[in-house]
Amino acid sequence: MEKEIKKLKQRLGEVYDLRNAAEVLWWDQTTYMPPGGAAARGRQLSTLERLAHEKFTDPAVGELLEDLRSCEKELPYDSDESSLIRVTRCEYEREVMKPSDLVAEFSAHASESHNAWSRARPGNDFAAMRPYLEKTLDLSRRLAGFFSGYDHIADPLIAESDYDMTASSVRAVFSELRGHLVPLVQQITEQPPVDDSCLRQPFGVAEQLAFSEEVIRRFGYDFRRGRQDLTAHPFMTKFSWGDVRITTYAKKNDLRNPLFSTLHEAGHGLYEQGIARELEDTPLGEGRSAGLHESQSRLWENVVGRSRPMWRFFYPRLQEIFPNRLGSVPLEEFYRAINKVERSLIRTDADEATYDLHVIMRFDFELDLLEGKLEVRDLPEAWRERIKSDIGVEPPDDRDGVLQDAHWYDGAVGGMFQGYTLGNIMGAQFYGAALAQHPNIPEEFEAGEFGTLLAWLRENIYRPGGKYTTNEVLEKATGSTLSVEPYADYLRSKFGDIYDL
Amino acid sequence: MEKEIKKLKQRLGEVYDLRNAAEVLWWDQTTYMPPGGAAARGRQLSTLERLAHEKFTDPAVGELLEDLRSCEKELPYDSDESSLIRVTRCEYEREVMKPSDLVAEFSAHASESHNAWSRARPGNDFAAMRPYLEKTLDLSRRLAGFFSGYDHIADPLIAESDYDMTASSVRAVFSELRGHLVPLVQQITEQPPVDDSCLRQPFGVAEQLAFSEEVIRRFGYDFRRGRQDLTAHPFMTKFSWGDVRITTYAKKNDLRNPLFSTLHEAGHGLYEQGIARELEDTPLGEGRSAGLHESQSRLWENVVGRSRPMWRFFYPRLQEIFPNRLGSVPLEEFYRAINKVERSLIRTDADEATYDLHVIMRFDFELDLLEGKLEVRDLPEAWRERIKSDIGVEPPDDRDGVLQDAHWYDGAVGGMFQGYTLGNIMGAQFYGAALAQHPNIPEEFEAGEFGTLLAWLRENIYRPGGKYTTNEVLEKATGSTLSVEPYADYLRSKFGDIYDL
Repeated sequence: MEKEIKKLKQRLGEVYDLRNAAEVLWWDQTTYMPPGGAAARGRQLSTLERLAHEKFTDPAVGELLEDLRSCEKELPYDSDESSLIRVTRCEYEREVMKPSDLVAEFSAHASESHNAWSRARPGNDFAAMRPYLEKTLDLSRRLAGFFSGYDHIADPLIAESDYDMTASSVRAVFSELRGHLVPLVQQITEQPPVDDSCLRQPFGVAEQLAFSEEVIRRFGYDFRRGRQDLTAHPFMTKFSWGDVRITTYAKKNDLRNPLFSTLHEAGHGLYEQGIARELEDTPLGEGRSAGLHESQSRLWENVVGRSRPMWRFFYPRLQEIFPNRLGSVPLEEFYRAINKVERSLIRTDADEATYDLHVIMRFDFELDLLEGKLEVRDLPEAWRERIKSDIGVEPPDDRDGVLQDAHWYDGAVGGMFQGYTLGNIMGAQFYGAALAQHPNIPEEFEAGEFGTLLAWLRENIYRPGGKYTTNEVLEKATGSTLSVEPYADYLRSKFGDIYDL
Repeated sequence: MEKEIKKLKQRLGEVYDLRNAAEVLWWDQTTYMPPGGAAARGRQLSTLERLAHEKFTDPAVGELLEDLRSCEKELPYDSDESSLIRVTRCEYEREVMKPSDLVAEFSAHASESHNAWSRARPGNDFAAMRPYLEKTLDLSRRLAGFFSGYDHIADPLIAESDYDMTASSVRAVFSELRGHLVPLVQQITEQPPVDDSCLRQPFGVAEQLAFSEEVIRRFGYDFRRGRQDLTAHPFMTKFSWGDVRITTYAKKNDLRNPLFSTLHEAGHGLYEQGIARELEDTPLGEGRSAGLHESQSRLWENVVGRSRPMWRFFYPRLQEIFPNRLGSVPLEEFYRAINKVERSLIRTDADEATYDLHVIMRFDFELDLLEGKLEVRDLPEAWRERIKSDIGVEPPDDRDGVLQDAHWYDGAVGGMFQGYTLGNIMGAQFYGAALAQHPNIPEEFEAGEFGTLLAWLRENIYRPGGKYTTNEVLEKATGSTLSVEPYADYLRSKFGDIYDL
């Protein structure tokens, strides 16, 4: 058995070397690559993804997994070995359904489409992206077509990132959440608007970057095993246990960026940096689902990063850096400004109360596109109507409308967005559980200490990596399955306080 | 036949995707990678190199090349197709001798050794590098051992980069050159030393980088298809026809760096950027030999970059950037300073008159190590003795002695250094031929124009990429084979003028 495990790990090692190499190429494409590099980069990524897929779905891997079936049952469920066999088989059974050529085509297309989007978005040119998005939709449908027995065509795509969810289960959760959000946003926006002009001043980009890195260093992000660079659409990426990078983007006249982008991506980074080293280069060595991952990015960005206790510590430091801009702005005014609720255009910049309405809208569009209810050519118009009715704003152009997000332009249509809101919901559950066990956590924040929270998250979520399903993690850590209530309570309590509801 | 050519190109495309991906990973390792990434990076590089080697030496490639033998003869020697078959077979026959596992081991070791060197050099710790270098020597010998019929064990290693040279032919050329250099350096150093204090002042790094990029942009380096980053040991690397990058390093108190490092690497970059696009992703799509490559880096760095005409144009610009440092320094003083000859420690910083003595010393060490005449443990001492007798300086430590260069610590022992001096020799031949056809070239330099020289080099050297052997390129471009005389004349004339010999 040890011999088979070793063989399996060797094969997985090769697969992860190829996958990680592809991650480096992707990171470079979105950070430093000169424009001339675009054409070949798509081919290179496509070759790496195809080879990784071929190596992973090699029949010899299937045979090894078969040989290991009995020993999986003999060993404790929690053990590294049993988990490795179980989780690898789960991924193998999914990957083996996809032809390697389709994987390669998807990857080449994603790279080309992302390059086209990098130009089309600033140019407000949806027409240029239409053929790319149509091909993405076509590829997404073809991918789903290789899986049988689903209820909704989006199910296999959702399963790519949140494999224990379906279109129907996500819809149910989103519908319940919507029932909380719509009246909350209504109530808030009936109040006098918060003044956030203190954030909208000229701030030096270098100082902003340095401060945001100071914050995440205190959170526990390890720069010896990571770094931060600038991109158009921030992301976290992992090349190995020892190299977990984040990217951010900076605005000169808005203090919220890079700050909150950095905190968000650092949340993802803390998750990946916290996974046990011995699980590296196997399916256990990465966060298990998009929802779990977003629970961490959104928790560190919002639950921690937009909390009063944490700013009691960091705000004086920020005032020191920008004395002319913030010296006379009281903490409370700053706190209200960074939590200002408003009907706005951009998902990634949205406040916590309206954010999920953006995601739910996106998710519905994905289902409509996949079902054929909505054509790509009609999407910009449908977007304008829906964002007006759901969020109450009218995009002046496609740049800040349907073109705003990289995800449809560098990935699939379907399965790309639900994780954000599932993450918000879970994040509140996790934080509630940590707080119940360690009521001193907010006091620690006030002293610039985040170790108790981080240790709890590492123990309950990060260290086991991909060992447990999302539901298993939730139950182990919080004693409950997915529940909207804690998140709804959190939002009501936070914004009730700020807006005096 | 068209079908076979297409098949061959497809297979080569996959090989080059893997090789280019490895280049990206290497570039990242030496520019941006955090220290924690080192362990996995070696494995990743090793996997990519092994797969590239397996794919290239696949028997199906050999069969395709056999099938194409007849059509190679039917087509004109100069044609893309005939050249593709000829040059690919030449590389195939060499690569097929090496076991893929050794290639992988070499690559993993190079990455680990480079990381160790990055720490050991600043720490002046040769003892830490000794086991790495011993393994490198062992791997180099094992690699050579897979080739039969050589006269000297270094021959197969020299053939890796300068495949039409041998230890014996290089020795003959070096011995002839040495006969010119030793008396020249002796004569020069008997003269009063040149005052180069104008270069040794505090200069802003950002301004130096910007100026060096301004110069190479005028040379013709295309930043839409390239970029420059900082490293410990500068190099040029190519990820595709459209992405040819250079690196440099900056010193605050020495105007020579990044400037001349940038010019040197840009010379390599101009070569690669100038290769015909249709040769991409085949063995024709890259410079043919280390010697040819260095002929271009050294030509742009020295023959152009340290010439009086070019500085007639650029020096006023440089004075504008550093008015307090250079405003009152006359052009002639600056020109003499950047061409100051002195007995010095560091090869890459050495002037043109002493540079080749460093290379010849290195080359001799490589042969002695491979022959077993010299042990790695005795190398630092041997270095100190030889550099004292050959160049007349005593290194205060190993940092600026045997540890100074990355090459033995990230590549083979053997075949790593001869290209520099072969390049100097060829560079003078090429420049002489270009000048004979276009005597107005120096006048153009004075006007900041480099187009005539660049066009001549593109036509005669760059565009055909790897089509011709080094000797063929020399004969086509200059009408002569490798000849030391033009280089010796160039040095005598240049330094005769400066030092009034």
